[in-house]
Amino acid sequence: MSQEHEIEVTEDDRKFSVRSGVNLLEALQDEGYELPSLCGGMGLCGKCRVKVLAGDQTPTEADREFFSEEELQEGMRLSCRVEVGGDIVLAIPSLAQGKSEEATAKADLDEQLVDIEPDSGIVKVALDLEEPGRGDQRSDATRIADEFESSFSFPLEIMEGLPGKLRENDFSVTVTVDEPAGRLITVEGGKNQYESYGMAFDIGTTTVAGYGLDLETGRTLNVDSRENPQGKFGADVVSRIKYGRENEDGLDRLQSEIIRAINGLVQDFVDAGSIEREDIYRSTFVGNNIMLHLLAGVDPTHLDQAPYIPAFTDPQWFDADELGVKINPRGKLALLPSLAGYVGADVMGGVLQTEMHKSDDLNLLVDIGTNGEMVLGNKDKMYAASTAAGPAFEGANIEQGMTARAGAISHVSIDDEGQLELEVIEDKEPIGLCGSGIVDTVGELIKAGLIGEKGGIVSEKSALPRPTINPLGNRLIDMDGEKAFWLHVDNSPVFVTQQDVREVQLAKGAIKAGIEILLEEFGATAEDIDRVYLAGAFGNYLRKENIMRIGVLPNIDLDKIVSVGNAAGQGGKLALINRGKMEEVNQIARDVEYIELSFRSDFTEKFMSAMSFPEVAE
Amino acid sequence: MSQEHEIEVTEDDRKFSVRSGVNLLEALQDEGYELPSLCGGMGLCGKCRVKVLAGDQTPTEADREFFSEEELQEGMRLSCRVEVGGDIVLAIPSLAQGKSEEATAKADLDEQLVDIEPDSGIVKVALDLEEPGRGDQRSDATRIADEFESSFSFPLEIMEGLPGKLRENDFSVTVTVDEPAGRLITVEGGKNQYESYGMAFDIGTTTVAGYGLDLETGRTLNVDSRENPQGKFGADVVSRIKYGRENEDGLDRLQSEIIRAINGLVQDFVDAGSIEREDIYRSTFVGNNIMLHLLAGVDPTHLDQAPYIPAFTDPQWFDADELGVKINPRGKLALLPSLAGYVGADVMGGVLQTEMHKSDDLNLLVDIGTNGEMVLGNKDKMYAASTAAGPAFEGANIEQGMTARAGAISHVSIDDEGQLELEVIEDKEPIGLCGSGIVDTVGELIKAGLIGEKGGIVSEKSALPRPTINPLGNRLIDMDGEKAFWLHVDNSPVFVTQQDVREVQLAKGAIKAGIEILLEEFGATAEDIDRVYLAGAFGNYLRKENIMRIGVLPNIDLDKIVSVGNAAGQGGKLALINRGKMEEVNQIARDVEYIELSFRSDFTEKFMSAMSFPEVAE
Repeated sequence: MSQEHEIEVTEDDRKFSVRSGVNLLEALQDEGYELPSLCGGMGLCGKCRVKVLAGDQTPTEADREFFSEEELQEGMRLSCRVEVGGDIVLAIPSLAQGKSEEATAKADLDEQLVDIEPDSGIVKVALDLEEPGRGDQRSDATRIADEFESSFSFPLEIMEGLPGKLRENDFSVTVTVDEPAGRLITVEGGKNQYESYGMAFDIGTTTVAGYGLDLETGRTLNVDSRENPQGKFGADVVSRIKYGRENEDGLDRLQSEIIRAINGLVQDFVDAGSIEREDIYRSTFVGNNIMLHLLAGVDPTHLDQAPYIPAFTDPQWFDADELGVKINPRGKLALLPSLAGYVGADVMGGVLQTEMHKSDDLNLLVDIGTNGEMVLGNKDKMYAASTAAGPAFEGANIEQGMTARAGAISHVSIDDEGQLELEVIEDKEPIGLCGSGIVDTVGELIKAGLIGEKGGIVSEKSALPRPTINPLGNRLIDMDGEKAFWLHVDNSPVFVTQQDVREVQLAKGAIKAGIEILLEEFGATAEDIDRVYLAGAFGNYLRKENIMRIGVLPNIDLDKIVSVGNAAGQGGKLALINRGKMEEVNQIARDVEYIELSFRSDFTEKFMSAMSFPEVAE
Repeated sequence: MSQEHEIEVTEDDRKFSVRSGVNLLEALQDEGYELPSLCGGMGLCGKCRVKVLAGDQTPTEADREFFSEEELQEGMRLSCRVEVGGDIVLAIPSLAQGKSEEATAKADLDEQLVDIEPDSGIVKVALDLEEPGRGDQRSDATRIADEFESSFSFPLEIMEGLPGKLRENDFSVTVTVDEPAGRLITVEGGKNQYESYGMAFDIGTTTVAGYGLDLETGRTLNVDSRENPQGKFGADVVSRIKYGRENEDGLDRLQSEIIRAINGLVQDFVDAGSIEREDIYRSTFVGNNIMLHLLAGVDPTHLDQAPYIPAFTDPQWFDADELGVKINPRGKLALLPSLAGYVGADVMGGVLQTEMHKSDDLNLLVDIGTNGEMVLGNKDKMYAASTAAGPAFEGANIEQGMTARAGAISHVSIDDEGQLELEVIEDKEPIGLCGSGIVDTVGELIKAGLIGEKGGIVSEKSALPRPTINPLGNRLIDMDGEKAFWLHVDNSPVFVTQQDVREVQLAKGAIKAGIEILLEEFGATAEDIDRVYLAGAFGNYLRKENIMRIGVLPNIDLDKIVSVGNAAGQGGKLALINRGKMEEVNQIARDVEYIELSFRSDFTEKFMSAMSFPEVAE
């Protein structure tokens, strides 16, 4: 029996045994540590570095190539070059880095992408080209092109510098080709083949999220988000369309604001990953169609009035420098396809991520933001619709509504004794409610019998149908003739008004009526639904019980509801790292049938009755 | 028997009879008049206009749409709308226009292009789009794309203005798509579908030729040429490479000069055809590879020294606005492929035009300018080579050499009585000799026995081998110790010196030796050659007898020699109007094998012996 050694990883205080002579990188990977290794353990990429804190480990030649003398002294080693010959205590810097990013970004770095092989079509390789001579008079461009299977064109600015670049570097260069675009992107001197990145952006009306990915491995390296700075020109899409139409340079201003936010996210990725922006070779964009129009600088004005015609729904490809997005200037920007004016690339990205278009089951995808968008169907047919849900679910149009930031009440529970429990973002003194807080409040008040089927808050006097909820009675107040329920009183009182409840009813009624029409079109009933995917913040932060209590969805089992997080962003990431997925989302946009609810005579009637709250079950 | 009427066309004073009731356009076309009709005689394109000078002809509705009241008064009519009901005397304005262009340009408007269907891939159509409505919510871009079979992208600047453009024009627009580029080029308001043009440019070291073509019909509408303004930086390619290398901004200056010349030719086409430059949607470029490098702004410096490596040989596609060529800014510029540094796109274009790559016969293409390039082969295999022929055949390095302009002796004959006859361009007082004049002089002197096999001009005393050529003796002179032969004495004497003859020997020797090596590579002898295509000015202006007398070619029958004019330019035109031909020339460049003569140890020997003149046959 061979000897065993103990490996200790300081980041998570874990110890495990390995047989003498095993490769350290493989041992760590076997134990579940996700150390990247782009070169396949050849000692070339330097990504698998560890810091040996205890245990004798003589630096190898590869170590000396990658690390400074100081780093070597500190114990930096390429784990792929270490043959374990004794006990080792080590740290994994990439793990710590990942953790801190995760902590600051609070985001879905680890969300599971549909299991696919990365195949972005961005091909970056280091070439030691044959030097030309009497027996080899190929042109500089042909000398490079011959190294690739697919053909591509050379941009003028690269061709101009090509003869000098090759000879200054003794014909040793790193070449990046954008295969789907059929175009060479860069020729760099020396070897830089492991630095190949892309970014996926989710342009929300309120928030812009940016994901930084390694195109080679498909791994998400960074995620960050920023407020959409267009907010100063209007909180919702309609007011931004209006701003663009009514102000000279309005469109330009809206565009430059969003580009500024995107470039900020690029900078975040560059800083977090210590990478070069020139090594970011592609970006994808999802978002509602108005956001994508404003990104491209295209007037979305006709989306503002029936019949709601967008300038484009098909995928758009632009050069980065055309839009001023500061990745590699010859990198391509891909706007994912939309289905219609109000069913955008975000929804199509969500379908891509959930794979409902490949399923035998009947699935419903619901993405609720300022608008509510929903897709119903299976692999055979799919229908989609959009409703002006109203921004209630994002905390807007609500007396004390706010976005989900520090001080927002995000969750509310009322226990059987009528005791109220609040969750506040970052545990601050509450100053308002975000969307999930509002839904929770309304749901819990329905449960407690303080809001009736038609949506009325009970009057103070009749507020005590059950003795146990006695304490709640004190929270019912009259505010200048309007009924309200207070959640918190201190420096700033926080309450929910009757009008707030009405806003919730309008929003959820529209969504529920839309789902009913999709079911009719499909020829199914609520019972036939196998799964409901709740996308976006709505799905992530809301309690399913209260979603059902307020009746956003038809009556289905709670366990059929699955939160899929930012499915739109995930879809954008998929399309970024795999060109087949880009094709797939295009096909989805061609296959899904769009139903314009505002043209349907039966919508209003369904909407009216859907505004009621379901009867309390218990 | 139906009644006959007489039609008289004033341009060529022709009269012919037609049956009563026939369509005038068809009658004219039947008689061989090339009246364009893009709309197929529907009265839509206005291209078939005639001027009725005598004969009653009431204007039709289509006439009133196309012509002003004044024009109608003058007799302007659309011939496609005229049913002949009496004798008519008419003028055909397009005929007169064509003639005057021909006269001024002295060029190959009528040269026969290989018989192909125009299929440029530029598709321009007028669309009366369905207006959007409740039943049709397609996006603006989809609404257009659905009218086409192939898919294409919308450039950002078109997308930006698309919603406004469609609505300002009530959804009636003319759309131009560049199918091979997969890109939309323009969306214009209204109907403009018959204006679709392209230009082919032949960038010579000395002269730049521009051909303006109708992409729809494939007809050449205009041809013009300009001196290559790079000449001020050096007469030949080597001195221009040097200028670019040794001067700051040298490359930029060389580039902007050639672009200036090209834009001048664009303007010529615009003026001559009364067309809009925005309606010119594509350009092709042939030329030697150094000229194409300088056009693209790419340093050709490594073409100056062994192993003579160009930056590119594959076809290059640029946007017009990238290079500042003032056709439609989104039109594509296509640089045809080269084979090697000194076998350029001009030669590849020549192969395309002669179709020697499809022939069972063994053909030899020889294009002689500053360099001599030759291609030998058949449909199975082809070889090409280039020699530094020296510029003797262009009149350079010759004591009194000059380019082929007014005052240049272009042809020389010596009759049996020893009488000299000179042809001078534009019948001016001679001031020098152009290439054909030099070849003629040397050839005629060989015939007359005044130049021997080794190239020596006989001395004055032995100059009278035959009594009949007595008068020639007086023309032999001694110029500061160098023998010479004078052709003309008046204000400015014109003569050919012994050194001039040596230059011709160097030039022709290199070409002949190159051909011999190609024959060896192919495994054939001179007798196997079925046809020799002489391309370029050389072929057009030289007398075959003297080409053979000085021994440029191996010994073959005179009737195997065919002058093909500007085959390079014709090749560029073919690639312009038919995308299949663009593919074909790419395949040619891949299939032809290049032989670098300067690396061949046997070249020098062959060159030395090829410098001798053949024995005089008669």
